[in-house]
Amino acid sequence: MDVEALVEGVLAGERRAVARAISLVEDGRPELAELSAGIYGATGRAATMGLTGAPGVGKSTIAAAVVGLARGLEHRVAVLAVDPTSPYTGGALLGDRVRMQEHATDPGVFIRSMATRGHLGGMALAAPEAVRVLDAAGYDHVLVETVGVGQAEVDVAAATDTAVVVLAPGMGDAVQMAKAGILEVADIFVVNKADKEGAGDVMRGLRQMLHLGAVRDWDPPVLLTTASDGAGIDDLWEAVQAHRAWLGTSGGLAAKRRARLLREVESLAAERFRERATSALERDPGLIEDLLDRRIDPYGAASRLGSLQGEGR
Amino acid sequence: MDVEALVEGVLAGERRAVARAISLVEDGRPELAELSAGIYGATGRAATMGLTGAPGVGKSTIAAAVVGLARGLEHRVAVLAVDPTSPYTGGALLGDRVRMQEHATDPGVFIRSMATRGHLGGMALAAPEAVRVLDAAGYDHVLVETVGVGQAEVDVAAATDTAVVVLAPGMGDAVQMAKAGILEVADIFVVNKADKEGAGDVMRGLRQMLHLGAVRDWDPPVLLTTASDGAGIDDLWEAVQAHRAWLGTSGGLAAKRRARLLREVESLAAERFRERATSALERDPGLIEDLLDRRIDPYGAASRLGSLQGEGR
Repeated sequence: MDVEALVEGVLAGERRAVARAISLVEDGRPELAELSAGIYGATGRAATMGLTGAPGVGKSTIAAAVVGLARGLEHRVAVLAVDPTSPYTGGALLGDRVRMQEHATDPGVFIRSMATRGHLGGMALAAPEAVRVLDAAGYDHVLVETVGVGQAEVDVAAATDTAVVVLAPGMGDAVQMAKAGILEVADIFVVNKADKEGAGDVMRGLRQMLHLGAVRDWDPPVLLTTASDGAGIDDLWEAVQAHRAWLGTSGGLAAKRRARLLREVESLAAERFRERATSALERDPGLIEDLLDRRIDPYGAASRLGSLQGEGR
Repeated sequence: MDVEALVEGVLAGERRAVARAISLVEDGRPELAELSAGIYGATGRAATMGLTGAPGVGKSTIAAAVVGLARGLEHRVAVLAVDPTSPYTGGALLGDRVRMQEHATDPGVFIRSMATRGHLGGMALAAPEAVRVLDAAGYDHVLVETVGVGQAEVDVAAATDTAVVVLAPGMGDAVQMAKAGILEVADIFVVNKADKEGAGDVMRGLRQMLHLGAVRDWDPPVLLTTASDGAGIDDLWEAVQAHRAWLGTSGGLAAKRRARLLREVESLAAERFRERATSALERDPGLIEDLLDRRIDPYGAASRLGSLQGEGR
């Protein structure tokens, strides 16, 4: 593969190059390091937004409405729908999005489903790189939509500038989300399907739970939307802009990006090391025998692998 | 802390020592390596069994019934209730288990909730070590009960000899479990609350889904139980024994334990390396600046951290 040409294509915003680059990230191919190095200088311009919530709360409908609004402002928008737990791009993921189809032929919109197929760090490490590809390709906004509310989804949401958590009446509950640690990463809450019975209860339950949490510098607003007819989308857009403005003036954006970049580099380094530990273990049948015969315990064995790899510094 | 005395206490089966050792594992204290080395030689005797399923399917009731049966056979039993996603031992986890209370004063039974408080590898690495503590303390059976059906629970279930997956009518569905990868790790399926409407549907749905999967050497049985009155618990016990017998004769037990031990050591080594990568990054402000100013990309930075740590071998 000609990575240099691929990088050029991405930087020129060519759709085919962008699509191929994201596939390369999904597959965790060896060319990834060269791609990453090639595009990194052109990143950091896009505003990134996460959309997390249980299946059925209407994340895709909200995403489509936000895309419509951003296009009205002539912004270029990319939507990345990620499924952190599946090695397959789930049919449902794109099948659902009838509304998104309205935007499919718009050259200012890029829509893509993404799964983890071979990236060694799973979606938590693959998603940020895919977002950088879209950023480097010149999209002003990158929306990252996840499929559920587990730890993996929280990790992906935490890798965006503004994490929007979506709830809806009758679809999962705030306690479940609290367990997954999603309340802590949310910058904005949306209670969608506001026209349905129980929306008020969801909102009250959420506000109660937020009051129990630690006081934060940014107080996440709780908004009501009915994305299917566009109600509340203007408010959501304004809340996202307000959050970004706050991030900018408070120094929060730089701090947030710095912290997640360092975490990402540490994780990448640890995953590379895991591969080396695996091959070191394979090359050391004596260690495996000692382990199986209980002459060395797992912690001792891990330590021995560590020193093989230069633990002594 | 006198780890030597703690190890002696665990090996002698003293309840207080066992409880303190598990707390030490939860907290990921530095003494963990010494504890692990001290007890490891005495492990490998307990039969371990996982109980995984959505909240409300009756895992605790099944666990209590299995404990009762095993005690009738004069086996010693430990139950470890783990919450992989929470840093707190949830009140609900032990509050629920009225039936388990029957066993609380039985010296042949040890019951313990566990959460991840500081163990660097999270529950996926803390749980196997806690199971080894119980194994070394002489419990014939260790039941590991998890609270949900996410990836973390699957990882914990996969760390037992016999993974039992519990479903019930109206409580989550098989599709959700399939997504979490739980069908692949299950050795036995239980449809609990067999007296409730819909139990037959759950069973049929599950069997259909199993037929779609790859053919495996061990064909997981699907059992019906009504744990609240003990119905079907004998069948479950026999299925667990049959699975263990099959593991023994097929060589599967040794292979399964070997594979998970190697995975555990690799993960422990990678987590240790992550800590070293973090401190190496902290000692290298130039690298952080290069990263923030986009002179080096995350993959390049991870590689530089790797070479700092002896990548050259």
